[in-house]
Amino acid sequence: MVIAVDVVGGDHIPDSPVGGALLALESNPSLQVLLVGPEAMTKSALDGKVYDASRVHIIDAPEIVGMDESPSKAIKSKPNSSIAVGLSLHKQGKCDAFVSAGNTGALLAASTVILGRLQGVLRPTIVTYYPSVKGFRLLVDAGANVEVRPEMLVQFARMGEIYARDMMGIAEPKIGLLNVGEEEEKGTEVLRESHQLLKSLPNFVGNVEGRDILPANADVFVCDGLVGNILLKFGESLVTNLGVLLKQTVKELHLPEEAAKTVFGVFQRTLKPFDPDNVGGLPFLGVDGVSLVGHGSSSPKAIHNMILNAIHMVEAKVNDKIVAALR
Amino acid sequence: MVIAVDVVGGDHIPDSPVGGALLALESNPSLQVLLVGPEAMTKSALDGKVYDASRVHIIDAPEIVGMDESPSKAIKSKPNSSIAVGLSLHKQGKCDAFVSAGNTGALLAASTVILGRLQGVLRPTIVTYYPSVKGFRLLVDAGANVEVRPEMLVQFARMGEIYARDMMGIAEPKIGLLNVGEEEEKGTEVLRESHQLLKSLPNFVGNVEGRDILPANADVFVCDGLVGNILLKFGESLVTNLGVLLKQTVKELHLPEEAAKTVFGVFQRTLKPFDPDNVGGLPFLGVDGVSLVGHGSSSPKAIHNMILNAIHMVEAKVNDKIVAALR
Repeated sequence: MVIAVDVVGGDHIPDSPVGGALLALESNPSLQVLLVGPEAMTKSALDGKVYDASRVHIIDAPEIVGMDESPSKAIKSKPNSSIAVGLSLHKQGKCDAFVSAGNTGALLAASTVILGRLQGVLRPTIVTYYPSVKGFRLLVDAGANVEVRPEMLVQFARMGEIYARDMMGIAEPKIGLLNVGEEEEKGTEVLRESHQLLKSLPNFVGNVEGRDILPANADVFVCDGLVGNILLKFGESLVTNLGVLLKQTVKELHLPEEAAKTVFGVFQRTLKPFDPDNVGGLPFLGVDGVSLVGHGSSSPKAIHNMILNAIHMVEAKVNDKIVAALR
Repeated sequence: MVIAVDVVGGDHIPDSPVGGALLALESNPSLQVLLVGPEAMTKSALDGKVYDASRVHIIDAPEIVGMDESPSKAIKSKPNSSIAVGLSLHKQGKCDAFVSAGNTGALLAASTVILGRLQGVLRPTIVTYYPSVKGFRLLVDAGANVEVRPEMLVQFARMGEIYARDMMGIAEPKIGLLNVGEEEEKGTEVLRESHQLLKSLPNFVGNVEGRDILPANADVFVCDGLVGNILLKFGESLVTNLGVLLKQTVKELHLPEEAAKTVFGVFQRTLKPFDPDNVGGLPFLGVDGVSLVGHGSSSPKAIHNMILNAIHMVEAKVNDKIVAALR
């Protein structure tokens, strides 16, 4: 198993990606990693670290795609970026997956262009884990496709179903279509048509609403990338902002220091699933390869988790199952 | 000031609407109320209550629109419903506003048909209050219009701006367009065109994302009714579901009873703004009248707050300002 890691993807480069890769080598003795990035930077990040050098390969990729750079421009103007080089190595079969905590838009575009689409896939999608009272559930699309057609939403549902079952261990994933009401005539024309098409899937539970996400009234929540991205970012903002409100309450109530500490401790622990660092990277589903993106703020632990997730996805043969399902 | 109250709108009828109306009479000595609903039911709800009978007028409306009834069917088949009768009285000038905790879809449809649109308004909209670290902010559209054109979103922004300023006391309401990214080329074609049109508004702060809602990085969040409705219902589901997660944490930590009580108390108080009962009804903006809808679960206190909100909206001449702004 060989995983390529983007050394210059994310806010904490090169230390988070390199640190995460070394952690993954410890977790998985049969793993080899390709560290893709500017050679000198990669070497200096490895400096003084203890690791099995025979399992670490430095791949020089001198160009860096910035976190806020325009995806289309970055792809065109930087053919030697870590993203382009890493994904090309994957395409050539020199590694089993590519992981990065870099620019999501650029990664999606490059994954689609360089790896190509799986047979039968209309549009690659990005999924996100969403916390619920029953643990993580899946939201698809999380921002890759803001304009969708019903046939695309149906494919998102089917790819999400396979991912939820094989990667998240949900036995019979229930598929719900996010809408403004339960009745099948609700919503936009795209949603009404999608509802009719989704009826042919045995696990389709119908329309679900915004209030059905947290209680996990479905396992795979299907939506367009606008709705999904707004929900994703809203969820990520909960910890910080509820924390601010909580501080206000604690102050108003003149809570003793010890009690305040307990309250914050319980709160932090409760909202931990909403912290993006606890999710080990999200896959682009529908591309002909295994390409995962992590949150820009990824810690070494988050990168480590993303690498393990990539290995899992390769071993579970998710892509073969997607091709078979869409045939 | 005469306000018509739907006696049979909501989950707790007739007691919540009648109780709320009597509370409002106490709050505002110059108020008169029309109680619109099946006469016998209204009379029995008033039975034994102490109130100034000269300020309470019972209007018989024998038909009831159910909470889950199809709006279009309800409007056509029940011309003597409390909704139809109450809004017609308002149209005839026999009251200054109509409030109901009933079927939102039916109320929107009936308000649009019976009251008509304000001059220049393309589509009436429904707004919702959204909690933030700075207090409530405005989300528009909250579900009335799932398919929108750019010109509609611009009108939602302008109506929302007037409402935020005159009804919510936000001096210079900043307008943000909910999107997947800050850059003006982001999002759907409708969003990109809307962005260009919104630029002509001095208070437009550009695109905002899901993470910008809770910190109130805008005061008026403009979106289509699909996004708005999903966010609205997601927000309403927070208290219950975070409560479930909190209970799990408290159990895992084996927290002593006293500490657990403190934790739940602080949590309840902190999330109070997310409880829909604390918002005093939401207006349909753009209709030629003052028509407010409350949450189905409205308590007498919530109905009371909705009546006071309706009075405020009449006195602030919100509709005159909307007509002037759109001229």
